Amino acid sequence: MFFASDNWAGAHPAIAAHLSANAGGFSPAYGDGALDRAVYQRFSEIFEREVAVFFVATGTAANSLSLTAYNKPGGISFCHRESHVIEDECGAPEYFSGGSRLNAVDGPLGKIDPANLEKALDRLTPEFVHAGRPMAVSITQSTEVGTVYSLDDIEAISGIAKRHSVPLHLDGARFANAMVALNTTPAEMTWKRGVDIVSFGGTKNGCWCAEAVVLFDLDKAGELAFLRKRAAQLFSKSRFIAAQFDAYFQNDLWLDTARHANAMASRLAKAIKASKTARLAWAPEANEVFAIIKRDDAERLQSSGAAFYDWHLPAGFSKPIGEDEALYRFVTSFATTVEEIDRFAGHIGA
Amino acid sequence: MFFASDNWAGAHPAIAAHLSANAGGFSPAYGDGALDRAVYQRFSEIFEREVAVFFVATGTAANSLSLTAYNKPGGISFCHRESHVIEDECGAPEYFSGGSRLNAVDGPLGKIDPANLEKALDRLTPEFVHAGRPMAVSITQSTEVGTVYSLDDIEAISGIAKRHSVPLHLDGARFANAMVALNTTPAEMTWKRGVDIVSFGGTKNGCWCAEAVVLFDLDKAGELAFLRKRAAQLFSKSRFIAAQFDAYFQNDLWLDTARHANAMASRLAKAIKASKTARLAWAPEANEVFAIIKRDDAERLQSSGAAFYDWHLPAGFSKPIGEDEALYRFVTSFATTVEEIDRFAGHIGA
Amino acid sequence: MFFASDNWAGAHPAIAAHLSANAGGFSPAYGDGALDRAVYQRFSEIFEREVAVFFVATGTAANSLSLTAYNKPGGISFCHRESHVIEDECGAPEYFSGGSRLNAVDGPLGKIDPANLEKALDRLTPEFVHAGRPMAVSITQSTEVGTVYSLDDIEAISGIAKRHSVPLHLDGARFANAMVALNTTPAEMTWKRGVDIVSFGGTKNGCWCAEAVVLFDLDKAGELAFLRKRAAQLFSKSRFIAAQFDAYFQNDLWLDTARHANAMASRLAKAIKASKTARLAWAPEANEVFAIIKRDDAERLQSSGAAFYDWHLPAGFSKPIGEDEALYRFVTSFATTVEEIDRFAGHIGA
Amino acid sequence: MFFASDNWAGAHPAIAAHLSANAGGFSPAYGDGALDRAVYQRFSEIFEREVAVFFVATGTAANSLSLTAYNKPGGISFCHRESHVIEDECGAPEYFSGGSRLNAVDGPLGKIDPANLEKALDRLTPEFVHAGRPMAVSITQSTEVGTVYSLDDIEAISGIAKRHSVPLHLDGARFANAMVALNTTPAEMTWKRGVDIVSFGGTKNGCWCAEAVVLFDLDKAGELAFLRKRAAQLFSKSRFIAAQFDAYFQNDLWLDTARHANAMASRLAKAIKASKTARLAWAPEANEVFAIIKRDDAERLQSSGAAFYDWHLPAGFSKPIGEDEALYRFVTSFATTVEEIDRFAGHIGA
Repeated sequence: MFFASDNWAGAHPAIAAHLSANAGGFSPAYGDGALDRAVYQRFSEIFEREVAVFFVATGTAANSLSLTAYNKPGGISFCHRESHVIEDECGAPEYFSGGSRLNAVDGPLGKIDPANLEKALDRLTPEFVHAGRPMAVSITQSTEVGTVYSLDDIEAISGIAKRHSVPLHLDGARFANAMVALNTTPAEMTWKRGVDIVSFGGTKNGCWCAEAVVLFDLDKAGELAFLRKRAAQLFSKSRFIAAQFDAYFQNDLWLDTARHANAMASRLAKAIKASKTARLAWAPEANEVFAIIKRDDAERLQSSGAAFYDWHLPAGFSKPIGEDEALYRFVTSFATTVEEIDRFAGHIGA
Repeated sequence: MFFASDNWAGAHPAIAAHLSANAGGFSPAYGDGALDRAVYQRFSEIFEREVAVFFVATGTAANSLSLTAYNKPGGISFCHRESHVIEDECGAPEYFSGGSRLNAVDGPLGKIDPANLEKALDRLTPEFVHAGRPMAVSITQSTEVGTVYSLDDIEAISGIAKRHSVPLHLDGARFANAMVALNTTPAEMTWKRGVDIVSFGGTKNGCWCAEAVVLFDLDKAGELAFLRKRAAQLFSKSRFIAAQFDAYFQNDLWLDTARHANAMASRLAKAIKASKTARLAWAPEANEVFAIIKRDDAERLQSSGAAFYDWHLPAGFSKPIGEDEALYRFVTSFATTVEEIDRFAGHIGA
Repeated sequence: MFFASDNWAGAHPAIAAHLSANAGGFSPAYGDGALDRAVYQRFSEIFEREVAVFFVATGTAANSLSLTAYNKPGGISFCHRESHVIEDECGAPEYFSGGSRLNAVDGPLGKIDPANLEKALDRLTPEFVHAGRPMAVSITQSTEVGTVYSLDDIEAISGIAKRHSVPLHLDGARFANAMVALNTTPAEMTWKRGVDIVSFGGTKNGCWCAEAVVLFDLDKAGELAFLRKRAAQLFSKSRFIAAQFDAYFQNDLWLDTARHANAMASRLAKAIKASKTARLAWAPEANEVFAIIKRDDAERLQSSGAAFYDWHLPAGFSKPIGEDEALYRFVTSFATTVEEIDRFAGHIGA
Repeated sequence: MFFASDNWAGAHPAIAAHLSANAGGFSPAYGDGALDRAVYQRFSEIFEREVAVFFVATGTAANSLSLTAYNKPGGISFCHRESHVIEDECGAPEYFSGGSRLNAVDGPLGKIDPANLEKALDRLTPEFVHAGRPMAVSITQSTEVGTVYSLDDIEAISGIAKRHSVPLHLDGARFANAMVALNTTPAEMTWKRGVDIVSFGGTKNGCWCAEAVVLFDLDKAGELAFLRKRAAQLFSKSRFIAAQFDAYFQNDLWLDTARHANAMASRLAKAIKASKTARLAWAPEANEVFAIIKRDDAERLQSSGAAFYDWHLPAGFSKPIGEDEALYRFVTSFATTVEEIDRFAGHIGA
């Protein structure tokens, strides 16, 4: 009953096996090997256009480099108040960019409200040196609270960004979970809707360590190569990332693992709905489920072996919540089993 | 005949297998899992004292964070003119530290000359704000040109650093190769000789991706945890590094792989000595061999399938070298075979 | 009728004269001259304890260095949402500190609401690397909207900061205006109420260019000397700042100029209260007056030669405001005359 | 007998008077006043083309912002080993640029040897991410040791820079002293010879505090405005700099003060040549004189009231120097008098 994070799972067996299969032999270092190049090509196929791909070590690195690729003195990036870049990266985006700012924008259930974004951007006059100036907009897909921007949502956001001449970054730490939830394609969910740069995460969806920046503006690729190296994010034995992505994309493994994780979240949500001791906070749209539980009950569950964390109440959450209750997050992954969910269901009296 | 870099080899089979064996199951993320903790403990045993261990993605990250752990406004770190931190990291140490400086110190064959270091440090008055002030000394062990600091060499350097109140960093991207060359222990080669912080590399010696900062001053560990996270170097599924180090240390695998690489370098050096077309530039002390070869011959070798790079002439190299000759580097690794060396020997007429 | 900013006034005649009087002769550079030292001593007398004083070029520099003096990786400083450090410094505090963050705290009329500060600080767990950690609290005295923290207000804020182990910075770009408004002393308004570091501004109150960081923790002075020099804020002919402060403090000139500016603000507020076309937005407490005026009327005033800016509606402002109205700021200074105010009064039908 | 630095002099009376004359009245802040604009225009006339002018607080700021205007990730700027940017700015250029590097180039008597520059630039392959890449070349005119690049020297350097696609910065802290020594014009000494950006110093030549970045590429002006503000170098009462430059340029005052300073250096050099106790180290070309003196004699001179500093032996200095001797620097300025020189001449037995 491990629902603490999709980071608690290890690697999918197919990925582990493929990595092992690529352990032997010699290959050029620093991303120039045959396998690296094949995987870059695979990314271009998946995104239906030529893209520049940069493997990095962590999602934090992918986000920080993505924003830094569009860095400006006095630059301000706009992201959701509860987004990962603000809440969980120890200031890495600001540090990587030498001090650019993240401006929190509110919106219900983890998604930027376009009207708020518009207002925040309108507040700045691009040539007025005192206040700084817009640099980027960043959205998280799926969001920190398990919701998903629809394609129209993305287009609304990118339209605002375009009108203010700033690029749109998509933090796709859970890219696949959102994409299968929308039943769409990488191209549709990104550049066709105005996204300029993507943090493409594989780690949470079955890899050990496979994160990449995917850049659509190839003219910026040369600079990003320097940004990545300077940030100590250029792997020498780069093929160990390439091998993971290679397996990830083979036979649509990544879609399968994401669909499985999302299905497990649905099953868990159903159990919570049926529960006598837990209430669903809002409907899950990807692989994260949020429930309101009495603190005592939560502790009892945890001591029965269920791993999950409590969570800040998000903006826009208005359900009544008792003094003795709290909000809890449950994350499912490729490794979550039906048996686990059902066992948990038993514990919560579903 | 892959002598381009020890980064061209993949992972040692035992390490690949152990990684696979640890793929399943759930474990806390961000370095708090049981395997992570066991490996930290193993580091403490190996270093014969309690150490703080920080897994990072690259050697560049280990070096940059090590120096940044001792960061000061106006800080200047002293390293060899041809060291990796200066020559091959795209300014990452300066970037990580927000602009501290690397001051090149000369010395023959990759090793800092203590007299030059003393002179360079003496030039600075610690309280004089205009000139900046000493922040750290960094040595590379083994060096970029395959030489090794003796234990006395290290002690001489650390003595100078101590007298100037600055810490000593050891860039151990090839830690094991140097250690087995000296037939010594981790403790003897580091803190017992005055080293304060170590970039401990496993990647070049048989891992996929296993680098760590090893810190002896435990009081600084809390800060380094923030420095690492802010630098986007904290892995979520950290156990994939832990598993590699776990296998690396089992049954002294790391010593075996390093000894093998060094032995292959010796065998290669012997072949070069016996060669009609190549001359040994200087005696290898670890797993890198440098030879003077006519450019034409080198190209011929490369088109016969030998991979190796030309190299800048290091300071202190005074052998006569012809107009049509150049210096070339050959790196051996755990994966280099006797057969490969002997085949290459044939090519150079040994 | 120049009410655009107290920065539009030049230098007080006594300060200009004293600067000229100190133009001749030779004196050690970089803050070590006899006049520099005398002025440092004068600061210590004024603050009733030994302080370390660092002249800098701008208020932005004073604020940015003050926060950077308490810099931490992952550090977050808390300041009012409409404070100068957030709104008007182009990200300088973040830049100087290599990416620390400014966290906006709300409160009515420019002042941090202690309950909001407490909540914001409580949200962070100091050892949790992901979210970053508290680094400083910064208040502006007087505030951007012309209000003043009472001594009790300051104590309430510093108490919260102390409980969370973070220092309190006071942005005193208008230090004197606030101090005379409170009829208190520098010591009472700062360290006696828990303030740790002050941006002490003279420019807006009659100097050309005289800003200083005043630091109470002398142990940090050595580091701040390096921070200032590295930030290119150490003047060579430092005495030109010293001479300004020397004149500023002579015969309590600074108190007179501040009292005059505040009195002019009161007179202006009275005129606005009596006006048929303008309404007072809130009572001025120092030298800034805010009024609600019809846009048409405001434009007419401006074309009659009155200089003033429109202003964002501050948080906590709840008066009804018409579609055709806006909020405007009027700043008075040592150079504002009764005649000017009265002429303006005529224009607004007071 | 104040020869410690041209920073020890105060302000020229004409500049002090003009500053006082501009103390009264109201004027837009932040560089937008009428006097500011008139002075920008004056710069364009003096440089014989439209230039963008940015007032800053210190020479260190001018240099650091000039290099940062051409900043690149992994960027390396090339300057003389003994240049001010390396030796005397506490790492400010590196800090401002977020970690770009200064690469020391050798050359005799403070001037970059073009052959060494060529070699240093050739060592880098612009697209090779590991080693970093060229970002700028910086020369100091006049140099730290009182020598002057001829116009041909500058053209030789700029030619090399152009061939390597990097801009040329000229640190003109002593711009006027060099220009009158060459009997040339601002245009000839800068853009007509390939200089791209200038640190234009007025402080050492008679101002209190008047430094400016002069930029020839107007397309970069918008960015530099943000860089300056973010670096806390945008003065509010900017006219106090403008007034100084206004007086500086009136009736060629700046040429007169520079000629006077240089003439005093010549007179001092003549006295040293004639001296029994001091030897001229090399011929002064601007307003700095270097002499070899016995340490005992130097101390005696200092206790007689002469202020001057000892100095590191520069590269390329090969005169024999006794164990009991040292090198000393003497700087003259607009404020140095014939009487002072002659009195000093008496002390050294000239």
